[in-house]
This record gives sequence, C-alpha cells and structure tokens, in this order.
Amino acid sequence: MFELGEDKPKEECGVLGIYAPTQEVARLTYYGLYALQHRGQESAGIAVSDGLSINVHKGMGLVSEVFSDSVVDCLKGKMSIGHVRYSPTGSGLPANAQPLVVHYQKGMMALAHNGSITNALELREELGKNGAVFQTTIDSEVIINLITRYRKKSLEDSLVKTMRDLRGAYALVILAEDKVIGLRDPHGVRPLCIGRMREGYCLASESCVLDITGAEFVRDVAPGEIVVIDEEGLHSYRGYSKLERRSCAFEYIHIARPDSTIDQLSVSESRRRMGVELAREYPLDVDLVIAVPDSGTASALGYATTLGIPFGDGIIKNRYIHRTFIRPTQEMREVDVRLKLNANASVLKDKRIVMVDDSIIQGTTSSKLVAMVRNAGAKEVHFLISSPPVAYPCFYGIDTVKPEKLIANQLDIEGIQEFVGADSLHYISKEGLLRALGTDCVCLACFDGVYPIPI
Amino acid sequence: MFELGEDKPKEECGVLGIYAPTQEVARLTYYGLYALQHRGQESAGIAVSDGLSINVHKGMGLVSEVFSDSVVDCLKGKMSIGHVRYSPTGSGLPANAQPLVVHYQKGMMALAHNGSITNALELREELGKNGAVFQTTIDSEVIINLITRYRKKSLEDSLVKTMRDLRGAYALVILAEDKVIGLRDPHGVRPLCIGRMREGYCLASESCVLDITGAEFVRDVAPGEIVVIDEEGLHSYRGYSKLERRSCAFEYIHIARPDSTIDQLSVSESRRRMGVELAREYPLDVDLVIAVPDSGTASALGYATTLGIPFGDGIIKNRYIHRTFIRPTQEMREVDVRLKLNANASVLKDKRIVMVDDSIIQGTTSSKLVAMVRNAGAKEVHFLISSPPVAYPCFYGIDTVKPEKLIANQLDIEGIQEFVGADSLHYISKEGLLRALGTDCVCLACFDGVYPIPI
Amino acid sequence: MFELGEDKPKEECGVLGIYAPTQEVARLTYYGLYALQHRGQESAGIAVSDGLSINVHKGMGLVSEVFSDSVVDCLKGKMSIGHVRYSPTGSGLPANAQPLVVHYQKGMMALAHNGSITNALELREELGKNGAVFQTTIDSEVIINLITRYRKKSLEDSLVKTMRDLRGAYALVILAEDKVIGLRDPHGVRPLCIGRMREGYCLASESCVLDITGAEFVRDVAPGEIVVIDEEGLHSYRGYSKLERRSCAFEYIHIARPDSTIDQLSVSESRRRMGVELAREYPLDVDLVIAVPDSGTASALGYATTLGIPFGDGIIKNRYIHRTFIRPTQEMREVDVRLKLNANASVLKDKRIVMVDDSIIQGTTSSKLVAMVRNAGAKEVHFLISSPPVAYPCFYGIDTVKPEKLIANQLDIEGIQEFVGADSLHYISKEGLLRALGTDCVCLACFDGVYPIPI
Amino acid sequence: MFELGEDKPKEECGVLGIYAPTQEVARLTYYGLYALQHRGQESAGIAVSDGLSINVHKGMGLVSEVFSDSVVDCLKGKMSIGHVRYSPTGSGLPANAQPLVVHYQKGMMALAHNGSITNALELREELGKNGAVFQTTIDSEVIINLITRYRKKSLEDSLVKTMRDLRGAYALVILAEDKVIGLRDPHGVRPLCIGRMREGYCLASESCVLDITGAEFVRDVAPGEIVVIDEEGLHSYRGYSKLERRSCAFEYIHIARPDSTIDQLSVSESRRRMGVELAREYPLDVDLVIAVPDSGTASALGYATTLGIPFGDGIIKNRYIHRTFIRPTQEMREVDVRLKLNANASVLKDKRIVMVDDSIIQGTTSSKLVAMVRNAGAKEVHFLISSPPVAYPCFYGIDTVKPEKLIANQLDIEGIQEFVGADSLHYISKEGLLRALGTDCVCLACFDGVYPIPI
Repeated sequence: MFELGEDKPKEECGVLGIYAPTQEVARLTYYGLYALQHRGQESAGIAVSDGLSINVHKGMGLVSEVFSDSVVDCLKGKMSIGHVRYSPTGSGLPANAQPLVVHYQKGMMALAHNGSITNALELREELGKNGAVFQTTIDSEVIINLITRYRKKSLEDSLVKTMRDLRGAYALVILAEDKVIGLRDPHGVRPLCIGRMREGYCLASESCVLDITGAEFVRDVAPGEIVVIDEEGLHSYRGYSKLERRSCAFEYIHIARPDSTIDQLSVSESRRRMGVELAREYPLDVDLVIAVPDSGTASALGYATTLGIPFGDGIIKNRYIHRTFIRPTQEMREVDVRLKLNANASVLKDKRIVMVDDSIIQGTTSSKLVAMVRNAGAKEVHFLISSPPVAYPCFYGIDTVKPEKLIANQLDIEGIQEFVGADSLHYISKEGLLRALGTDCVCLACFDGVYPIPI
Repeated sequence: MFELGEDKPKEECGVLGIYAPTQEVARLTYYGLYALQHRGQESAGIAVSDGLSINVHKGMGLVSEVFSDSVVDCLKGKMSIGHVRYSPTGSGLPANAQPLVVHYQKGMMALAHNGSITNALELREELGKNGAVFQTTIDSEVIINLITRYRKKSLEDSLVKTMRDLRGAYALVILAEDKVIGLRDPHGVRPLCIGRMREGYCLASESCVLDITGAEFVRDVAPGEIVVIDEEGLHSYRGYSKLERRSCAFEYIHIARPDSTIDQLSVSESRRRMGVELAREYPLDVDLVIAVPDSGTASALGYATTLGIPFGDGIIKNRYIHRTFIRPTQEMREVDVRLKLNANASVLKDKRIVMVDDSIIQGTTSSKLVAMVRNAGAKEVHFLISSPPVAYPCFYGIDTVKPEKLIANQLDIEGIQEFVGADSLHYISKEGLLRALGTDCVCLACFDGVYPIPI
Repeated sequence: MFELGEDKPKEECGVLGIYAPTQEVARLTYYGLYALQHRGQESAGIAVSDGLSINVHKGMGLVSEVFSDSVVDCLKGKMSIGHVRYSPTGSGLPANAQPLVVHYQKGMMALAHNGSITNALELREELGKNGAVFQTTIDSEVIINLITRYRKKSLEDSLVKTMRDLRGAYALVILAEDKVIGLRDPHGVRPLCIGRMREGYCLASESCVLDITGAEFVRDVAPGEIVVIDEEGLHSYRGYSKLERRSCAFEYIHIARPDSTIDQLSVSESRRRMGVELAREYPLDVDLVIAVPDSGTASALGYATTLGIPFGDGIIKNRYIHRTFIRPTQEMREVDVRLKLNANASVLKDKRIVMVDDSIIQGTTSSKLVAMVRNAGAKEVHFLISSPPVAYPCFYGIDTVKPEKLIANQLDIEGIQEFVGADSLHYISKEGLLRALGTDCVCLACFDGVYPIPI
Repeated sequence: MFELGEDKPKEECGVLGIYAPTQEVARLTYYGLYALQHRGQESAGIAVSDGLSINVHKGMGLVSEVFSDSVVDCLKGKMSIGHVRYSPTGSGLPANAQPLVVHYQKGMMALAHNGSITNALELREELGKNGAVFQTTIDSEVIINLITRYRKKSLEDSLVKTMRDLRGAYALVILAEDKVIGLRDPHGVRPLCIGRMREGYCLASESCVLDITGAEFVRDVAPGEIVVIDEEGLHSYRGYSKLERRSCAFEYIHIARPDSTIDQLSVSESRRRMGVELAREYPLDVDLVIAVPDSGTASALGYATTLGIPFGDGIIKNRYIHRTFIRPTQEMREVDVRLKLNANASVLKDKRIVMVDDSIIQGTTSSKLVAMVRNAGAKEVHFLISSPPVAYPCFYGIDTVKPEKLIANQLDIEGIQEFVGADSLHYISKEGLLRALGTDCVCLACFDGVYPIPI
C-alpha cells in the first residue's frame, strides 16, 4: 500500500477467531475485520467451518473490496477465523493472502498469523528435505506444515511440538473442523485477547474487535499459552514454558487502536501518559500544541493539558487517500504529503508551535510537515516525538525499513533536527516511555537493539 | 452513500475550476477533488478543455474509484472543472454525474453545480414548451439550457440573463473552450473562492483545495458576481444586483473542512468558538469532555479548554467504513453505530461526561451514542450541540430529511433529551452561534425557518 | 472493436422493440439482443416502460458484459426497446450508447437507431440556432430533438413532420410511456421487421430475433411506414410518400445472420445463390472449394455443389477472439490473421483451391489468407468474391473505410489480384448479384457509387 | 461454464509449453492458449521462468478475461507453460487454477495437467501419511508432491519414479527454472505434440497451437515418453515401458480443433471420413443434409458429398453465448437451446432432412433440436450420430455425466429415437468409427466400457 504522507512502521497483520455455533460467524468476522483494518490493508480473508469442512474467501484489497454481501452469505458455518494483512513491497502476492487452508491426513485446517517467524527459512529447508512443497512465501505455510507433520494424536499435542520449533513473534488463530484455537509466542510479543460471547468465544488481535462482535473482554492469551475453544468451552494449555512477557511497545505508540486494551493497559491512556511524560521532560514555552493526526493526537493532548497550553487542529488529515490513490508525478511532489496532511493556516499563523508525532522513521515526511507548518505562518516549530528514536529494525512482525534508511540509525538527534528543520526536536526518553507504559515487560528492540528473541 | 452511524445533513456537491495552460490541469483537478471529497462521495467528474474542444470523464463512486492514472493522463488540456456529488437516495443515477458537457450552436460548454435551484421545475417546464429535451434530472441541465438559449453575443451576457431567471442557492463553475467561469448566487449562500496560481487561477468550493493545487488564496467570489478567467487574466462582472450575503451557517457547523476559510472566517476557528460559547452558556460540572468525531471535535476542545476540563478520546471513529460497506442485518443492528463510532471504555469509566456533537437530525444515532457511552461506564452523559435545533429543511443544496423526520421539528428540547437518553441536553443558542460566527450575514433557515430566498 | 483477421464493413447497429404487457419484456429484449450482437459489439442498452415512466440501462461492451441478472431484473415494464452498437474508431464514447432517453414537455421518450442521417449536421445546426443543446454526437439525439419540437398534438403527427426533415437511411424504434413505435426510411435501406407475440408485438432489425422472443413473423415494415403498437394493437401510418425500395445489398452479402429473412428474401438462400452465380460465371477446374468463415461459407457451398467439386474446411475460425483480445506487437504480426483464421494444412495440401469470401475491403487480410493457404501446401489458390468490388464508401449506416483505403477504389481487378497474390481473382458481376437477390430494389452504392439518397 | 444448447462431454484441460529464450514466451503462450480455449473456459494460467525463478499469473475465466496487456508484459522469461481448464460443476475453485507453482528443496517448479489420475485419492492419502498438506483438490498437486518427494538427483529420475506410481491418463507440461518438460501417460490417452521453433521448442495438447506459436510440427510425444527441453536441445527419456497406444477417440469425434493432427491423423479428415462411413452404413433418401454446428459439420459434409445430397446451413449457431450468459428462467425455457442454435426455416421448409451430430449424451438437447427443425417445417428428421452410443463414463479426463444420466446407458437405440423424436436415429458402428480413424489403437471405453487403464 502506498501510504502517502505517512512514514510509519506497518503492522503486518491482524487476526480474529470466533466460535459461536448459533450466530452468523462469517458476518461477525467480516465486521470484526473492519475493526482490525488499520493493521493491514493489502489483503483480507475469512475461513469458516460448519463442523465438517472448511470454506474460505480471501483476496487483495480492503475488507470492503474483498467481500460482498453475497460472498459473506455463502460462508456458512459455526466457527471462523479472519485475517487482514499488510506486507512489505514486493511480496504482495495474491497467493500470500490468509487464512491458509489445507487438506491433510486428519482433515482440514485453516490458519492465520500475525508476527514473524525468525527461523522460518531454516524450518522451510528442513521440511523441504522431507519432501514438503510450498506454494506461498508466508510463514503460515511453514507453521501449518510443522503442525500436520507432528500430528499423530491430538492437534493440541502437535501444536506443543510445533511451538518447540518456532522462533519468533506470533499470534495465531487456527480453525479445525470442530474447534478454534489461539496461541501466542512464549514472549507474548504480538497481542491476542479473549472475549466471551453469548454462546461462544472470540479471539482477536485487539480488544476493540470484541465491541463489534458483541463479546465481553475476558483476558489476554498468556505468553506461550494455547487456547482451544470447542463445544465444551474454552480450554487452556501451556504450549511452551512461560518466558518473560515482552509486549511490543510499538502497539501502544502507533499501531493499535486507541480503544483497545493490550495486556491490561489501555492504548489511549498509554498515549496520553506519553504526552504527560513529554511535558515533564520538555516543558516548552509555546503558544499552541498540535498533533500529527491520528496517532500523535492523544500524546499531544496529554502534553497540552499537563502544561496548560491550548491544543489546536493545526494539521488536517484527508480521510479519502487510500490504496488506489494515484501517486503524484515528480513535478507535483510538492503536493505529496499535503494531500494527506494539510496545515491549517488560520490556527498556526504567528504562533510558536509544539507539534507532536508518535515516531520518525525515514524523516522525509517529518521534514515536509515541519516546512508546511512553518509556511502556514508558525513562528517556531518544536517537534516532540512520543517514542524514543527508532534506530533498529523490527524482526517480530512490524515492517520498518532497512536500517540504513532509519534516520535515527544514521544521524544523532541534532542531525535529525537539522534534517527535519525543526527549531528543536525532542524524543521521549526510554525511561519516560516505560513510565508511561507502567511496566518493563515490553520489547524495545527497535529503540535499543536488544532483541528478546534470537534472530 | 450509506453513512453508518452518521445522521447528519449532507452537502450535495463540491466544485472546482482551474485555468493554468502551463500545468497538468486534469491531474491538479484530480488532487483538488480529493480535498472536496467530504462534500460528496456518490459521483465524481472532470472536464478539460485544450482550447478547442472539451473532454470529460465522470462516473459513480469516490474520486479514487472513478479515476485511474491512465484516465487522468488522457484528459489533456489547459483548463478544467471538477465536481463531486452527494445526492439524496433514489436519484443516484449515472446520468446525473457532473460536469455536464454540451455541444450548442456556439461550441462546447461544461458546467458543474453546487446548490439547489428552487424554481428548477418551473424553468424546466418553460424550456420544455420551447422544445427542450432533458436527459438528466439535475439543475445543471436547466441552467445550461438557459445559458445557451440566451447566448446571442457574449457568454457573459447570457450568464447575466440566466441569473435573472434562476432562483435558489448556487455556486457554478463553467468551462468554455477558452475560459473558466465561476459564479455565485446573489445571496452567496454556497461558498466559492478564488486562488492565484503560478500562471493562472483556481476556483473552489473550499479554500483547502488551494493548498493542494498550489494556489494562493485571493478572495471569495462575491454574492452575485461572475468571475471569468481567460488568457488575459481574471475579469469580474456583476451578474445580479448584490443582495445581502447569507452564507450557509451549516458549512461552518458541519460541512466544510476545518482548514478552509469561507467568507473570511476560518472553519476550525468558528467551531472552536462555538465550543467557547457553549461553555459560556452551559458551564457544566463534569470530569471529562469528549467529542463525536470528527465534526464535534473542535467545539469540544473549545468547550474543554474554556472550562479547564480534561478532553479525552472517548469515542473512536473507524476510518474504513465506506460506501461499499455491507449494512448489518436486522439481528445485528446492535453493531450498527458501533462499527463507525466506538466508545473507549478505559477513558469513560466512572466519569461524568460532556459529549459534544455538531447537530442532531433524526436523533437515532444520538440516542445510540448516549447509550454506548453510558454502557462503557460513564456515570453521567450531558449532551451539548454546537448548533441550534435543526427544525426546518434546507432548500439550498443540503440534503436534510423530511421535516416530519427532523426530531426538533417534532419534539421540544425536553422531548429530545428524553429520546436520546442524556442526563441533560443543551443546544447552542442562535445568538451564541452568531457570536461564534462573528456576523449576522448567514442563512439560518434550517434553525428558524426564515428562508432568505423564496422557495 | 478490434476485429482481427476481419477486414469487413461493420454494421453500425441493431434495434429491437417489444410490446408485451404480460411478459418479462426486459428479459426478452436481453435475449433478443444476443441475436443481434453480430450487428454491434461496442455498446448495448435496454429501455423499458411500465406505462408511466421509462427506465434505462446501457453501457460499453457486449450484451453479456453490460447486463447482469440483477440489472435485467430491475428493468420492470410492459414494453421495451433495445440496441446494440458498433461505431467507427474514436467516437466510441459511453455517452453515445443507446437507447437515448429524454424528458420533454409531454413526458418521457426513448429512441434507438440503426442507420445514418446524411443531413444530421445541418439539422443539428438548425436546432442549435433555436437553443438546442446536445450531449452526444449521435444522430438519435438530433432525431429526438426534431420529434419533441414538432410535438404539438400526437406523437405520430410529429413523427411524420420529423421524417420530412430527415435524409438518410434509418430504422428506428421509439418507446413512449404507453406505446412502442417503429419506422423505416422512405427507401427502406435498413431492415426492420414485425413479429406477433402471444399478447403483443415485436419489432427487430432481423427476423432471427423473433425466433428468440417467441414471435411469429408478420411482415417487414414498409419503406416510409410508421408502425405504432399500443394496447389497442398495431396501427400503420404512412410517414412519407413511399419511394422505391432500396434494401441494402450488403445485409445479404455479409451483415445479416443467415437465419434471417429481409424483405422476403432469406439471407442464407441469397448467399447460396451468389455461389451458384459465381459457379455460372467462373466455373474453375480445381480440387477443392473452401470458404473464409463464416460469411463466405454459404456461397462456397453453393459454388461447390453447383460444380460438383468437394467442399472442405480449409480455414478454421477461432471463436474466442473478442474485444478484449491483446493486439499482437509488431514483431508478432505474423501471428495476426492466423489467430482468428487458421489454414487447415491436412485439407489443403497439394490441392488446387478455390477460396470464397464475401468481400474485399482493404485487401490486407485477403493477401494474408492467400499466403497462409499457399504455405499450407495448396498448389493453386483462386479467390472468388460473392460481391462486386467495394469501391465506394457507404453513407447509410455501414462503416467502411475512407475511399482511398478501399483497394477497389485504388486498383483494378488485376491490380487487386496481384496485391492479394491469388492465382486468379474473380468478383461476382453486378448482374450476377442481382440475379442471386432476385430483385433490382437494392442499394448497390458501395459497388457503383449510385447513391439513392442525397448525401 | 454453462454451455447452453450443448450437451457434450467436456475436455477438462489444454496444456502448452514453450522453450524459446530469444522470444517473448509469455506473449506466445498467451496467443497459444487462445488456440486451446475450446478445451477449457473456466480458468487460464501462464507460468514463466527467467532461468532463475518462476512467476505465474492465473485466474478464473477465459484467456481474454484473465490476462491484460500489462499482465502479459510482466511475465518476463525464457520458457513458459500455460493451461486452460474446464472443470465439472462444484470444483470450480480459484485455488484449482493451473499451472501450480511450488517451492521445494531443489528450487521452484510449475506443472500443468490434462487428464485424470485414477489413483489420485490413494496417492493423496499415502502422501498425507507422510505429512503432506494439500491446498487444492487437483491431481496436479498430487503429482507435484510425488515428484518432489522422489527428487534425490535429477528431476528426470524423479519423473520416472513418479510415473511408476501414477495410474490414469495424463499429458503434463512441467517448468523447472531451466527447462521445460513434457510427458504423456503410458497409453498416450491424452494428446501432446512437439513443435520446433526458430530457436527452441513448443509442446502442446493440439498441433493447431504450433501454427500460432510459429512452430513446425515435429512429432507427437510417444506414450510413456518424457521429453526434456533445455539449452542443449530436446532430450527424450523412456518414462515407462511403452504400453499399447490408446489415443482418446473422442478427441477426433468432438473435442479437438479440426485443424489439429493427433497421433498422425488429421481431426478434420477423420470427421469427414466418419461422415463417409455413416453414408455407407445408412444411405438415406432425403432432400437435405444439415449439421449441428460446429462439431457435426465435417461429418455432415462427408455424408452429403458421398451420397450426392445437398448440404445446407439448417442450424445457425450464435457465437456470443458465453460464460456470463444469464440462464433463462423456468418460464423462458422454450428459448433455451434456440438461443445458441437456431433453426433456419427458409432452408428446412418442406424438406426431408438428415441432421448429423457428433454424439448424444443426455438426449435433452437433441430432442429440442429435432423438435426445432420439425417446427421450422422439415417433413422428416433423420438423426445420424458420428460416434457410437456413449454408454459409459470417462475416467480419463473428459467430463461426461453420471452413468444413469447417459441416455445410451438407460435406453436402447429405439428408446433413444423415441426420446429425441426423430423419424429415424442411427449411430455409426464401432467398426465404422475404427475404419474412419484408420487404427485400432484408440480408447473406446465410453462406448464399450472396456477401460484400458484400471480405475
């Protein structure tokens, strides 16, 4: 997807599972995927089981582009899983859309995956030596091949064996003919939560899905836990000896929806607190606080409120710039960022401004934003970032760019400030971030290069 | 368009004209239409002239759906006009997409229209008596038939004559082979502004377009003015003796983009001030102010800041609910509003809340929102509206509903409060609104039933 | 449409009208248009009336591309007209699809047209002087403007007046709210026939449509006749003093379907007789007769049977080369004709061949066919044409090419023979053609340049 | 595909392979697939290799629907394989489109298949026991899993081992990164031929493809032969001890294009000879011979010529009835067959008719055709069939219907004659068919139930 005026890490996927024999599970999944659409706009898919066999529909595009009313109607079943995907440029192949559905000696199975298996190539090679063939380039196919090969007795058993082989970050939902399974990697890097429905259960990457599927939040799936939902209810298995939790900090900073709660911390509350921490660390004397919408807004409000500075809508986001947008030609590059994010001159004119964003990746968009705000009449532009400098790539399911393209990997803060052209530039400190999150149990690898899982 | 969870009046159209022989006018118009997309999502169109003949492409859907790169490339020209349209249910015919292009005895002409001609039927009948045939049901076809029938000498001349016949609210852009023309009704109800480009001019319904087309704001077209742009520059004609300006108040309240300035008043500033007025009129003792996004946000912030109450993102809007969204079945109506607007429980829990919205039309969405906020744990929900009660239909280009469906036409404020289920409900006073707008020269017909133009 | 390997004149349209209140007229029209699809593949459309108002659906492409089941279902009505269109390169605009539907002072009307109005420009100008505006470039719009302007009392009356103004060849079907009308130009150049249905009537360009709509052939509409079908049955009016009939000879030679009968002559029988005449005129001593399928087949069989020479399928036509076919690049031009028409070597090898085609327009395809047959092993290739040389353009609704591109306009028969590379080349004589058609009342303008209608 | 008015067995697939490093192989394959389109209209696909990796594009629909110019352009490579597919109702899943492309431990491989593996289920189970997962329900996936599992040393080696396991009829084309491979089952039931190109080779289900790809016919692949084409040229391997050849007789009777030659016999010549044999066996005294187009035409001409009876185009086929055709509703079933095949009354009236068709499967279409011809005025209708009664299902890649739906499985000839309503009905004798084919080495299982390969 071409995300004009957005130079942000991309979550690679969102997943969702529903076990609710008395409800229209495909339709619920369809609506639930809307609540996960921000986690991936490249492809979407839903697999349903009626208890005997599994049916799937998936395709390239937004949920609204992939599914029509009649398609959803055709997906009859008692349980289902769904998936939305973003994928780095180049691998956006139709064959890679999920859920992946297979026939194997014990029947059918569908699987959808959020995260990244760091030893996927290795596993793929080993499986290949035993004759496995692969029709896609996604990790899900490796995982499913492991599961089916280990499958002697119970599916749960083979999942435990599979988890022994897998390295990386993953939240999986699996659909067998008669059950829905969710599991989360031993560090719990990628989120997955459980909701209780009228008659059944719902699993989802984010709790905001539960509000749509009519489920009540129960708890997060624990790191290394396997959760099985079938006609007898919900069963929990230990899939892997529990390691220290390492929830992805970037989910709070940028990816997740504000109305989601992950591992007991509200996303919107965490963002507000990042603003409060920024205010504590950098109490600047300005006339107005503005945000780069949408993900900078909560922090900006936290900052403004703490310091008693007015907050204004200094940058307006166009809600209609989507996938099919025609990229401006070289001569029109001036239009570029402005199409998605436009400075609101009447608010900015003659003001000293603090602009809050959640992160800087390559810096190009940031520099355009600073220039735009300045051209709109701002006297000073101070740039506050609610995350520490992103200086290292993520190997756990978030698509950043190559290290040499990460501006914080190449320049120090002074250099970045010069590059973006701000009067001052301040990142929240790692300590400030941890205070805002209220826990040390997070993965900060993209900030400090300390990778909790071998890569 | 199915606007789930939005029960708002709809602007019927946005228009745009560019005269810039040295630039890619179609591409500029394409980008400019993105900045007007909020004014109409049903159809989009662009007409270009290369100085000799006029070429057009239009169709049903969003700008991104109607235009592809190759289509835009095919539209070669020196000047252009563009249009986006919303239209009330039922008349959404492909034939009604604009701009309308005709061949007549003096050549070709294209026209795009925002507004509503109140005596259109009458004019249509009269033209019909003289043998005119109509292929659409839009006012633009009536206007274009008047213009061509009056055309003896100059086009400008026939426009003056046409304006004598037209009653209603209108902002028009017209493309002749060698010029672009803009005109605004004698009361200036619908907006239209002028921007100066590197070599040329730009006309647009809203000034936020100028930021995209690279134009510098010059001024608004005056009520009753005809503005002609050709190779000799910009010429102004008086099309109709100037009547008192009656800018549509609803543009400020709900329709226009915050980064637009209409008739010298910034939209975002006007909304902030409505919040300030609400604070003055109803200084409630609550814990948190929230907004119904997006149009209630600016007022909510104005209210919160004035009273020193924290503002929080209590309602989260899903950005991916668009035209092709599949409407929930009856059994899933509970999902309905929630899909587009979801309560953020972690922010609302145990709080006394002021929720600010810009208007109430039928009241059904409002009642669902109040219930949703309450279910999310709010202790009290006070509902503030930044417009007076909408009790009368608009005949000037905004699609409200039938009077008997307007809740404020049927119930008094107490009744409405009961219907929506709020602990208290307060509308801004008409005086408060005028103070916020800083002028009396506005049309308030939908609030007080005083129609400045005969209907 | 890109008609690979076919270098033939193109009929511009086919029309169809049904009055049958008790039947699903839209569905019947849809199926009927399939039987006219060979007359135009560029656009298709159906208009229906339920007695009160007219509804239309039309678009670019084949009937199967323009209509879906649900679209046909939406077209509820008691009577209908339909249209398929081919159009010369460049004017293939969506706006030009028919039927054309208008609102005018007496209600609504739809019109579909096959043919060409030779004084259309003149009429257009005159109408323009009276203020008419045109939204398309098709003759139908001129005709409909004339009709509505003349309409004082009855529609029939205004049709008579309109026919006085029209010059050219035309077969029209018109849909008013409560009747279906058909009319044919005073010379009857373009075909139109009448069928009686269970309860109602059907009008169609070709009688093969009647087999589909379940109608029984009644008769052809007479030259200059106006046929009105309403709840009281079928009424005939003289629209114009009857001139001498001049049925288009090319309908028999190439355009019409073999199972149609036009002006009392079976198309397939006429083609067989052309072969018989060719046998009489050029009784060659060869081993095998082959045809260029499909339109050369009947004549080739007539020729072979008459002379007692075996007929073989020497050229095989690919049935799947359609509109969306990707044109071969320059380097692959060798593939060109062969993709649509392939020589059947096993049949041709070492044989002396007579190859029969119905006409030669530019000669390029013919020369490729001769070469292909020769390369496939034929010892001699004699080329017989079942029409006289096409040396003049058609102005009556058939799209030939510019005169200077007509090979028979530039070269004599010897020159053409040399160009196409045949061992001998023979055209049927004009007399032979007339004998085959059994009448002199045909238009032969494209052969002899004698135009029965002023141009 | 809904084949209206055609009640014929369906070939399930056509395959094609090209090794031609100096040419645009994807484009050649694209055009070549047009020449195989009659063998399958449900899906189409092309895989190309540039020597390093394999790229594929495939989808549901006709070749013209699946491929656009830009898609073909993206398929850069030196060698390629292509596939068109028909598939019995129900299994028409997008995932089943071919070629199938896999990654395995030795690299990538693509495979396309025509035919049917009779022990596929058995093999699938065995592979499943060893952990194989299947993402489709097609035989190709079973074959490819066998190949990769056997692959220790050379690919050729593993093919030999694979052929030992496979039972059934198959013609395969395989694309490795650096070679194209073709192979044919030990009985040679399904056709596959070799052509030499300027610099390279072409493999195809039918020789008519070679005319399009610019290849010269070399020979058929021998039963049980493996043909490998790489940069050193063409190599032949014996894959399986040669069994007696059993070319499918139905390829000659109905499936293959007339301009193809299969196992040294021209298809069009074989059909003509079937007509000659029919004339010998049933020299009826009639006025006219007609054919059910297209596959009955050659036999009808053979019959007519032999007996000196005129041949006429008594039934006209509509060329525009395709996949997207809307099926007539129950009330319009009378239209049914007639839409595709219409009687030409002017030819049939008052004649005693012999109508020749190539086969009868269920008999319903035949009975409608007989009635239609009779209603068009024929005095007598004698029905001749150029194949023996189809009384047994095919298990080798042709989709007939269930035995109990085969009319010749349920009724004797007298019963069939009564069912179809013909004055007399005659099938060619088995001996007559073998005489026409000039060989005993054919599979006649669908006529006599003698299956050369165990099922």
